[in-house]
Amino acid sequence: MPEQAIAIDLGGTSIKAALVQSGGHLRHEQSVPTDADGGPDAVLDRIAGLVSDLWTGDIAGVGIGVPGAVDASQRYVVRPPNLPGWDRVDVSAELGRRLDREVRVVVENDANAAALGSAHYGAGRDFRAFLMATLGTGVGGAIVVDGAIFRGAHGGAGEFGHVSVDFDGPVDGAGVAGAVEAYVGQEYLTARARQLLLSRPESRLHAIAADDLSPLHLTEAADDGDALAREILAWAGHKLGCALASVVHVLDIRKIVVGGGVSGAGDWLLEPARAALTAQTMPALRDGLQIVRETMGNDAGLLGAAHPLLADD
Amino acid sequence: MPEQAIAIDLGGTSIKAALVQSGGHLRHEQSVPTDADGGPDAVLDRIAGLVSDLWTGDIAGVGIGVPGAVDASQRYVVRPPNLPGWDRVDVSAELGRRLDREVRVVVENDANAAALGSAHYGAGRDFRAFLMATLGTGVGGAIVVDGAIFRGAHGGAGEFGHVSVDFDGPVDGAGVAGAVEAYVGQEYLTARARQLLLSRPESRLHAIAADDLSPLHLTEAADDGDALAREILAWAGHKLGCALASVVHVLDIRKIVVGGGVSGAGDWLLEPARAALTAQTMPALRDGLQIVRETMGNDAGLLGAAHPLLADD
Repeated sequence: MPEQAIAIDLGGTSIKAALVQSGGHLRHEQSVPTDADGGPDAVLDRIAGLVSDLWTGDIAGVGIGVPGAVDASQRYVVRPPNLPGWDRVDVSAELGRRLDREVRVVVENDANAAALGSAHYGAGRDFRAFLMATLGTGVGGAIVVDGAIFRGAHGGAGEFGHVSVDFDGPVDGAGVAGAVEAYVGQEYLTARARQLLLSRPESRLHAIAADDLSPLHLTEAADDGDALAREILAWAGHKLGCALASVVHVLDIRKIVVGGGVSGAGDWLLEPARAALTAQTMPALRDGLQIVRETMGNDAGLLGAAHPLLADD
Repeated sequence: MPEQAIAIDLGGTSIKAALVQSGGHLRHEQSVPTDADGGPDAVLDRIAGLVSDLWTGDIAGVGIGVPGAVDASQRYVVRPPNLPGWDRVDVSAELGRRLDREVRVVVENDANAAALGSAHYGAGRDFRAFLMATLGTGVGGAIVVDGAIFRGAHGGAGEFGHVSVDFDGPVDGAGVAGAVEAYVGQEYLTARARQLLLSRPESRLHAIAADDLSPLHLTEAADDGDALAREILAWAGHKLGCALASVVHVLDIRKIVVGGGVSGAGDWLLEPARAALTAQTMPALRDGLQIVRETMGNDAGLLGAAHPLLADD
């Protein structure tokens, strides 16, 4: 088997690509805008271009992480929410046609790809079974058991972002009231901050980023001692921990790896999450509960997308 | 392999026993008080007496469903909440000693036993994978995939009763705020009814059972057109559906079998649960969502306890 593969991380705003060598070494990383409004054909052309640029000698195949549901054959992407016009696209065939050569293409949901990357090359290596929670624009999730994705009865298991902590709470993009995504997801979190800023003139957040607030600004202000920023991150962390407790009760999986941009808030978010997780978990299941950060960032998704094509663990 | 086994359902108030023949036929069912205050020795003596009474020729073994956690070896019961003095009891060895003959003893958590019974002989036969939710004094749960219990990383998976629907809600016996058990569990449900009765003098529940209200009385009053009884069951059903939605998001298992005494309320409880389950589940996971009743009652637990000892499915 060849010892390298090409990895693609297809996002709503950018496409990242790299050559992955066995052992988890990333080479020639690059990123181009997705220009998703151009529709699937233009995006697929762009991906094919990246693959051609990275092609070198013996390649085991192309692994692609996509922001949406993937069917059981791992060829089709079905209605990815942030990619207009992608109703049901056979990524494997479309890419093969564009590349004009025999190539194995493996398509995986991006949260699953990040979890596989973590399981084999990152923070997840320490755990036989864990939940990966990806805190980004949305909140994604994936369950890993013995190095492989647990897919449930119909392939959709691990949708952590839609686990609810309040039947009467704020509604997320999928219409679920009190979904953890509606507290911890990037836009919900910053919207909450902007709302609270109206009554908190003393907060440093006004100076740092009144108009274009990001989770990074919240972390920065919390590090600087800003009370409001700490409150908001603790509020979100509390909801994160409560949602994780429900997952622990269902799966009895006690290890959680947290990734994605919002996880950069570190312990401002995760300490309240740990406290809530313990408090909301029945005593019999508390031993060994652990929340850790995945610090590989985007690399986890690239490594995980390529992993099924490479021989080694 | 012999074609019959002895099944025991050990509860906090009564011990039920029967001879189970392959194909799921129950014979010679009997029930004695547990007298749990006597401690493990007295209870085990009583179980041994039931086994001796039922013994007849060729017996594959004794299957026991217990109201608490069972260790991975399926011999030990660990701290069952309603059995005082049972810190860690090797049921298999203790029973073997009392019976004075070679006998295989299989110990299983009672919610798991009921789920196995449903999977092989009851409403669960229709489903490859399902969650069994047992609505009794507490709310129990078990996950069945391909006829076997899904146990998670540490053996404790399926603790549905402690899935929370409100981080700020009423606290259940395990200390979990907003746990579904704290709405749907028998004592929580009737406590809620008694509270509401204070301001609802017109309700027929006053006449039916002012002092000793049970879920059966609620069902009876709802059938008779009582508005308060219908409201309470709908309120509980809504919480049940919300908690089930979180399970669907985690496992992508879309079939739910509901058993236990409170499930006798039927559609007064389950129709609101179905509506909430659909509303609180992301559209991509809604196809095929189904909540059905297990109507075998206690027999499910007896059949499931014996099932691992019998050859047939």
